Amino acid sequence: MSIKPRNEDPGLMDLKALANAAPNLKTILNEKRINAAIVEASPLQFSYACSQVNDAVINQFQTLSDDWKILGHYDEVLAGKAVNQTEARSVSHHGLRDPQNKEAIASHSDITEFVSRIHDGDLLGYTDMPFDTVVQIGIGGSELGVRAAYEALVPYATTQNGHLMEADFVGNIDPDGCAITLGSVDWDSTLFIIVSKSGNTLETQANLAYLKASLRDDGIDVDAYLKQHCVVITGNGSILDRPNTYLKTFSLSDSIGGRFSVMSPVGLVLLSLAFGSEIALSLLLGAAKMDQNAHAKDVKKNASLMAAFIAYWERVCLGYEAVAIVPYSESLRSFPFHLQQLLCESSGKSVTVDGKPIHTPTSRVVFGGAGTSLQHSTFQMLHQGPDTIPVQFIGFRNSVCSDSPDIHDKNHDALLQNLVAQMTALAVGNDSNDPRKRHDGHRPSSCIIAEALTPDVVGALFAFYENMVMFTGALFDINTYDQPGVEYGKLLAKDCEGSVSDTRLQAFLGLFT
Amino acid sequence: MSIKPRNEDPGLMDLKALANAAPNLKTILNEKRINAAIVEASPLQFSYACSQVNDAVINQFQTLSDDWKILGHYDEVLAGKAVNQTEARSVSHHGLRDPQNKEAIASHSDITEFVSRIHDGDLLGYTDMPFDTVVQIGIGGSELGVRAAYEALVPYATTQNGHLMEADFVGNIDPDGCAITLGSVDWDSTLFIIVSKSGNTLETQANLAYLKASLRDDGIDVDAYLKQHCVVITGNGSILDRPNTYLKTFSLSDSIGGRFSVMSPVGLVLLSLAFGSEIALSLLLGAAKMDQNAHAKDVKKNASLMAAFIAYWERVCLGYEAVAIVPYSESLRSFPFHLQQLLCESSGKSVTVDGKPIHTPTSRVVFGGAGTSLQHSTFQMLHQGPDTIPVQFIGFRNSVCSDSPDIHDKNHDALLQNLVAQMTALAVGNDSNDPRKRHDGHRPSSCIIAEALTPDVVGALFAFYENMVMFTGALFDINTYDQPGVEYGKLLAKDCEGSVSDTRLQAFLGLFT
Repeated sequence: MSIKPRNEDPGLMDLKALANAAPNLKTILNEKRINAAIVEASPLQFSYACSQVNDAVINQFQTLSDDWKILGHYDEVLAGKAVNQTEARSVSHHGLRDPQNKEAIASHSDITEFVSRIHDGDLLGYTDMPFDTVVQIGIGGSELGVRAAYEALVPYATTQNGHLMEADFVGNIDPDGCAITLGSVDWDSTLFIIVSKSGNTLETQANLAYLKASLRDDGIDVDAYLKQHCVVITGNGSILDRPNTYLKTFSLSDSIGGRFSVMSPVGLVLLSLAFGSEIALSLLLGAAKMDQNAHAKDVKKNASLMAAFIAYWERVCLGYEAVAIVPYSESLRSFPFHLQQLLCESSGKSVTVDGKPIHTPTSRVVFGGAGTSLQHSTFQMLHQGPDTIPVQFIGFRNSVCSDSPDIHDKNHDALLQNLVAQMTALAVGNDSNDPRKRHDGHRPSSCIIAEALTPDVVGALFAFYENMVMFTGALFDINTYDQPGVEYGKLLAKDCEGSVSDTRLQAFLGLFT
Repeated sequence: MSIKPRNEDPGLMDLKALANAAPNLKTILNEKRINAAIVEASPLQFSYACSQVNDAVINQFQTLSDDWKILGHYDEVLAGKAVNQTEARSVSHHGLRDPQNKEAIASHSDITEFVSRIHDGDLLGYTDMPFDTVVQIGIGGSELGVRAAYEALVPYATTQNGHLMEADFVGNIDPDGCAITLGSVDWDSTLFIIVSKSGNTLETQANLAYLKASLRDDGIDVDAYLKQHCVVITGNGSILDRPNTYLKTFSLSDSIGGRFSVMSPVGLVLLSLAFGSEIALSLLLGAAKMDQNAHAKDVKKNASLMAAFIAYWERVCLGYEAVAIVPYSESLRSFPFHLQQLLCESSGKSVTVDGKPIHTPTSRVVFGGAGTSLQHSTFQMLHQGPDTIPVQFIGFRNSVCSDSPDIHDKNHDALLQNLVAQMTALAVGNDSNDPRKRHDGHRPSSCIIAEALTPDVVGALFAFYENMVMFTGALFDINTYDQPGVEYGKLLAKDCEGSVSDTRLQAFLGLFT
């Protein structure tokens, strides 16, 4: 987009100059700031009171946003421009939750119809048993987001129409993992979903082969079984695109990247089977609200844009190399691992969209887990370790279940008190006389706040981070949507098969024989 | 231990001077190096062929090890010296697996006897049902290591005497998480283990209260139930130490830190219940072998010492701020999260053991997950991202299960080919003409190799990292065994209860109401 490298841009130099006078959280954090530093983005709020920014910094965010036409990149994405230049593809995941998008509506009603035939018992297993379990075979973008969304929705579903089907996942090529999962399900009542856009993902092909071998070992007619138990989600014309072989085939567009695919059939089929189509629809509506919010030109009104600028500021101007993402919700325990893929794979690049070297850092190390559990593992380091590591908290005013109301509310209060205490402790520190108990403070965080972990909020959380990484990509001037760095390892893995010519590969393989 | 700060030590200056001439992996990696750069530590091997070290660097490791008396610290630990100075405690987890240690033998036979009464049906639930499920209520060190060991042992147990009891865990205070887990178990056949050394861990008390409330809601006599279904593991004299209230109480010594407790009753009771006492015993024997290896004075013969020096070199001399731990085993998927706690909580300090400021960096950000799955999330960043992030691989020559032998072996071969390919790709890189496909290479890694994920190997892996963090702590000259940084947040959380005086805490709490 830009002609001169970002690092020489006078606007960025102005922003960097502000880093030396970054406000100290120990002195500026007060009641007024806490109540003012909020971006409203219903159903979410984004609090940046504990980020190391002030008006001067935010004004410069606005200048860069306007000068670099960051929202223009979003417009280009929506207009179907081939923003994924290396793969000559457009990027269409926003369309999946656009209520006006006819393709999305058609796809969703196709899913709804199929799922209701399963739930109604119109489609049964090969021994005429109804399906009660679904196992998704897919890896990376075909696993992480779906697993995170599945776990996130369990409490809500339990309070509503119930949890209609149990779900499990097989991603890893490790045959011990596949054996344990397949050994735990009942062939009679399990539906399998095979997901691979290209159709030839190594792990997914290997695990499909494992499934077939296991069925054969158990004396089951494999072809007949696949025709009754196996759903495929793949790109048109892929090696898996053989509708007559499987119970049902859903098509996946080239323009949906794996890590952006949770609201495509990749996620929606499993989530609709597990929880019903209405919950899946709420997910889309929540995401659509965040996509709307992402159009706001004012950084102070655009939650994912503000979050992207803060990430950029922390990485490029303040030099912080990692970020911890900590939802205070056990049901979001796997959400940080989806975000690890989304953020690290999208921004882990060292060349611009035009293939030129980048002279600023790009992706951060993303790690995290559910609070309060993570307080007992990494928070010692966050408070007193050598590096400043910003934290992104996520918290909910209310819990979802209410099985034992009194104790439930009491424990949820304690959960929130811990969140608030950690945010405050990181920011303000203390000056204990005992050096071992001293906290320097001025350690930044931000917090996403929502009412409760309902399906629309889950959808909004996914979209918030998808849009944030789209905006940070535009700030870094990189291609957010490709992953060329993972191809080379695949090539070398291929070289390890049969007679190996590279003596280094040969020697390493020798250590394992 | 040392009088002058480590950063002014001439030996460290000599090591730092070598960083400018660190060997380039692109040129030095060859067959000879791969076969030579191995520390033998049966049942493990530690390969450092892809670490950025050469003879000069390793010789300087040896000099520092001798000059700083790093093995002397291990001797002090074993001698029962109060090396955990801030808490005035000795550190006795090595004794747990010392085959000569009478206390450990007595504790283990107490566990074995109790567990066999459960397995034999001598002890039954309140409706006379045998126990088939165990739920451990505990957080941090009472959860992460045990969960990782439990998952690691499932495949082996499945091939042996079977998987005797299913296990689940409740750690987080989030009541939605607790409700889901308690809702999924059968009161009749579930045994609960409550773990808290102090007895008053916030989360564990809250979840025990939740358990009691749920039992009451279901019309069950709580006192009678706890007496028949509830095991407690706690310190002598703690608020939970009431043997007449519970089915069985195991005592936990003050000198066993939570993150080092997996081979104490904290881990062994659950693991013995799940898999039988013999498997638990093998775990101890594997750990004991690593404790033996950790006595070797020669860095090239001491696996955890070599790993500690490489970590120190990468952090202090080369400036790498993070490490990815990637076992190529689905069953070790949670092991990196145990290690995240072990390494970040032990080394996330900024003062020396004497309370003086440290002038070198200490802990690294630890993240990871199981390969090949992690290849699809963070490896793009590891290959082409802005920072050099060392990787610690773990791989196994053979798989454990062999349900469908042909495809099982084929998929395990593919797993290892991927490990070898990634290690090589990171080290040697490529010079593609397309800048987007270029890999700089010279990105370091190491690899732990073992025959298969058997119980002795699981024990050895835990002990390897426990000893490694003990040695890095001695190198940093910090107290590895305390966690003062987590206390402050607990104090502020307490301040959030009732009428809140701090206006910042008040304002944050206001955002959530």
